[in-house]
Amino acid sequence: MTEAAKSNKPPRTAITPTREENFPEWYQNVIKAADMAENAPVRGCMIIKPYGYAVWENTQKHLGQMIKDEDVQNAYFPLLIPLSYIAKEAEHIDGFAKECAVVTHHRLSVNEKGVLAPDKESELTEPMIIRPTSETIIGESMHNWVQSYRDLPLKLNQWCNVMRWEMRPRIFLRTAEFLWQEGHNAFATAEEADADARKMLNVYNRFFEEYMAMPGIIGVKTPEERFPGAIETYTIEAFMQDGKGLQACTSHNLGQTFSTSSDIKFLDKDGVQKLAWTTSWGLSTRTIGGLIMVHADDDGMIMPPRMAPYQVAILPFIKDEADTPKILEACNKVREDLRRAGISAQVDKSDARSSDKMWAAIKKGVPIRLEIGARELAEGKVSFTRRDLGKEGKVIAAIADAPAQIATALNQMHDDMLARAKKRLQAQIHNVATVAEIKAFFAAGTQGGVRIDYALIKGSADYEAVAKEFSLSCRCLPLDAPTKVIVSKAY
Amino acid sequence: MTEAAKSNKPPRTAITPTREENFPEWYQNVIKAADMAENAPVRGCMIIKPYGYAVWENTQKHLGQMIKDEDVQNAYFPLLIPLSYIAKEAEHIDGFAKECAVVTHHRLSVNEKGVLAPDKESELTEPMIIRPTSETIIGESMHNWVQSYRDLPLKLNQWCNVMRWEMRPRIFLRTAEFLWQEGHNAFATAEEADADARKMLNVYNRFFEEYMAMPGIIGVKTPEERFPGAIETYTIEAFMQDGKGLQACTSHNLGQTFSTSSDIKFLDKDGVQKLAWTTSWGLSTRTIGGLIMVHADDDGMIMPPRMAPYQVAILPFIKDEADTPKILEACNKVREDLRRAGISAQVDKSDARSSDKMWAAIKKGVPIRLEIGARELAEGKVSFTRRDLGKEGKVIAAIADAPAQIATALNQMHDDMLARAKKRLQAQIHNVATVAEIKAFFAAGTQGGVRIDYALIKGSADYEAVAKEFSLSCRCLPLDAPTKVIVSKAY
Repeated sequence: MTEAAKSNKPPRTAITPTREENFPEWYQNVIKAADMAENAPVRGCMIIKPYGYAVWENTQKHLGQMIKDEDVQNAYFPLLIPLSYIAKEAEHIDGFAKECAVVTHHRLSVNEKGVLAPDKESELTEPMIIRPTSETIIGESMHNWVQSYRDLPLKLNQWCNVMRWEMRPRIFLRTAEFLWQEGHNAFATAEEADADARKMLNVYNRFFEEYMAMPGIIGVKTPEERFPGAIETYTIEAFMQDGKGLQACTSHNLGQTFSTSSDIKFLDKDGVQKLAWTTSWGLSTRTIGGLIMVHADDDGMIMPPRMAPYQVAILPFIKDEADTPKILEACNKVREDLRRAGISAQVDKSDARSSDKMWAAIKKGVPIRLEIGARELAEGKVSFTRRDLGKEGKVIAAIADAPAQIATALNQMHDDMLARAKKRLQAQIHNVATVAEIKAFFAAGTQGGVRIDYALIKGSADYEAVAKEFSLSCRCLPLDAPTKVIVSKAY
Repeated sequence: MTEAAKSNKPPRTAITPTREENFPEWYQNVIKAADMAENAPVRGCMIIKPYGYAVWENTQKHLGQMIKDEDVQNAYFPLLIPLSYIAKEAEHIDGFAKECAVVTHHRLSVNEKGVLAPDKESELTEPMIIRPTSETIIGESMHNWVQSYRDLPLKLNQWCNVMRWEMRPRIFLRTAEFLWQEGHNAFATAEEADADARKMLNVYNRFFEEYMAMPGIIGVKTPEERFPGAIETYTIEAFMQDGKGLQACTSHNLGQTFSTSSDIKFLDKDGVQKLAWTTSWGLSTRTIGGLIMVHADDDGMIMPPRMAPYQVAILPFIKDEADTPKILEACNKVREDLRRAGISAQVDKSDARSSDKMWAAIKKGVPIRLEIGARELAEGKVSFTRRDLGKEGKVIAAIADAPAQIATALNQMHDDMLARAKKRLQAQIHNVATVAEIKAFFAAGTQGGVRIDYALIKGSADYEAVAKEFSLSCRCLPLDAPTKVIVSKAY
């Protein structure tokens, strides 16, 4: 508890505890204050509330278009995977499919005790699991659809829900059920598959930078951290304000692992039957957790403008009840002017006090708050404030100029948020030269990660001991310095 | 088999059998020829292929916007529903929740026989079912979120997958897993709830008419056909080319059934605690089955222009290989011109023969085929053909005028398709005055449905016998003539 709270004064920050005081609790409270999501009564699951879901809809819209621009086609495959499909790929099972929801019956009935229960007569001859990922079931379709080199490349994507039975669920970051997109692709050559996996990593990186204002380290996983069955796993590792890493997306070169287990073969131009090469890549609702931990502050969420559910909160500032109609009319007109300029806005018409409306918009992280009161109206002006700058950045604008000025401010806000996050990321990664320095870094409680020669820690028992002591993991070998490895705590 | 096929000549229609010969088989073959979907290896489930999924994406885009325009917010609730939630609402269980996928374990392991199987140690203390619909789980959230009249109305919608264990699955029409949107709403008064259920029916009807070119009869279900738990179920009943009805969407006034079982209470303005009134309404991938059976012909699918995955198939018509580069360049330019005019188009660059490209576009039901060959190019012209008119409707246009002319043609095609479907629907419904006339109508094999005074068949044993003999059901009491009932065979 802050001093302010203890002394019964209003706390100085809208969110308590602050990041400094208790980062995990701050994270939960930011989500609650912004009304983005909550834990479901179903174990390990979450309810994504409208304000949080709108962020996912913006992901679907923007990333979805970028994926389509790469000539990938959306489709939909079954939720349930027969046990025998999973059993085909041994490494995949070991790594993945064990902690999952198993469907064993297809009917409920009232049993001898008068209680509704699974009907014993309805037991499935083959149990099915709820997809934890869809390589095996999509592999079966690829087996059917791919006959000749003319059928390749085959590039598919689906937006769907998946389940993994998580023992320590955390909202957005690690939930039993989550939403994602999963791309699954088959190619005629190893080179094309690797090029696809790398290209899609760049697509994700553009999405992170251009929309989420969330920079990351682009790299490749160490063999131990690869997706089960992949021959190479590419990743973007973002770093949170508490210095922990977060795997923001992955893109896998699956080699011929799944084309072997699913028998995806094609007749090549040379008349020879060959096994295809496959890739898969995905990004999930977990990135929303990243978005929060990268951008939010002690007053709540800060939405990067291009991901914001709405970009402008229009706050009527009413002192005299008699002014209400004309002020609300002006608010609606401004909203319409903004809409025409391609800017989304909402008018807060609730009967809350002006200061409560302002704090609600702050906690939700609406990029810009725009105030209209009787005085402004008389002067033909409005004032607006960027969430990331606060009062000091307040701008007074003529009503007619507001849409253009706000459009510029939103773009500038995006650029500033990205620049700040990049600067912080650079400051968070420290070069070290020995395992002892790794130990010293984390023993001192320094927030961030270290970069060290991979050869120095690979197979090193000393490193393993330090990693265990501080719960460290190898985040990635950066593509621009592949002899190095980034080591940190992580979500 | 057609005479043409029997005599070893190419069949006169692209799809065999024809609608006349075998409607159910024709339906399956239209889907196959258009490459829209296929049966999954998972029992009762389907794989929605890219060309079929694009129709669903257009549904999400257009209907999704119409739903948002009604101030409904999208959100996401858990896939799994604890058994105890389902057990709360007895009528709901009886009608609904019995044939469903039951999750009983959360882990797989290799058993004593060396086989991968549900781990006995991981049995859930409370089984869960995969949502067949979400009234019960969303009701739990409404219980938590609704405290005062200020929290009402609460209007939520989710786009998701649901499962019902179907014994006789048919692709799109009746599958174990399907995709839909489900709106769930709570109101302070009975009047508001009923008004919402009716209003959303009109929203669906606008979507059907303005986008799907699929008219229907707007009505209310008889008590026997209501959604389990509803006090009134509104419906739009479309009629297929074989004269069978298809429930295209439903909108339920749930009264206080679910607010009672989920305890959704609010403190009203008068200081009294009251139960809320709820509604739910949904539209699923089943409507794609309706779209096919209303519009397709014996040559395959006919996509209504506003639902088409792409609206124009640009077919390069190459006689002399030397012309290839300039013809393809012209095709790409036309595609770009169309795109700028808001029209989606694809160039068929495959090395198939021109006639095969034409037939592929016909079977897929692409609204307009546009041909560019060397002669047209020399003359600065293109020719285009509406799928629903065929060769007789071929238009020659100057390249520069093509986008405007095609935009007009697409709108005209939509209007014509809707008018034709409306005319057919009117012709399909026959007024009858007695149960004997119902019997005579269906005994004669007449395609369509009958309209009769509801009082004449309500509780009539004679009617029940006829209904059983011909598999008839009461589709709805039309809102514009509520003393009548529409009776037909149905999907």
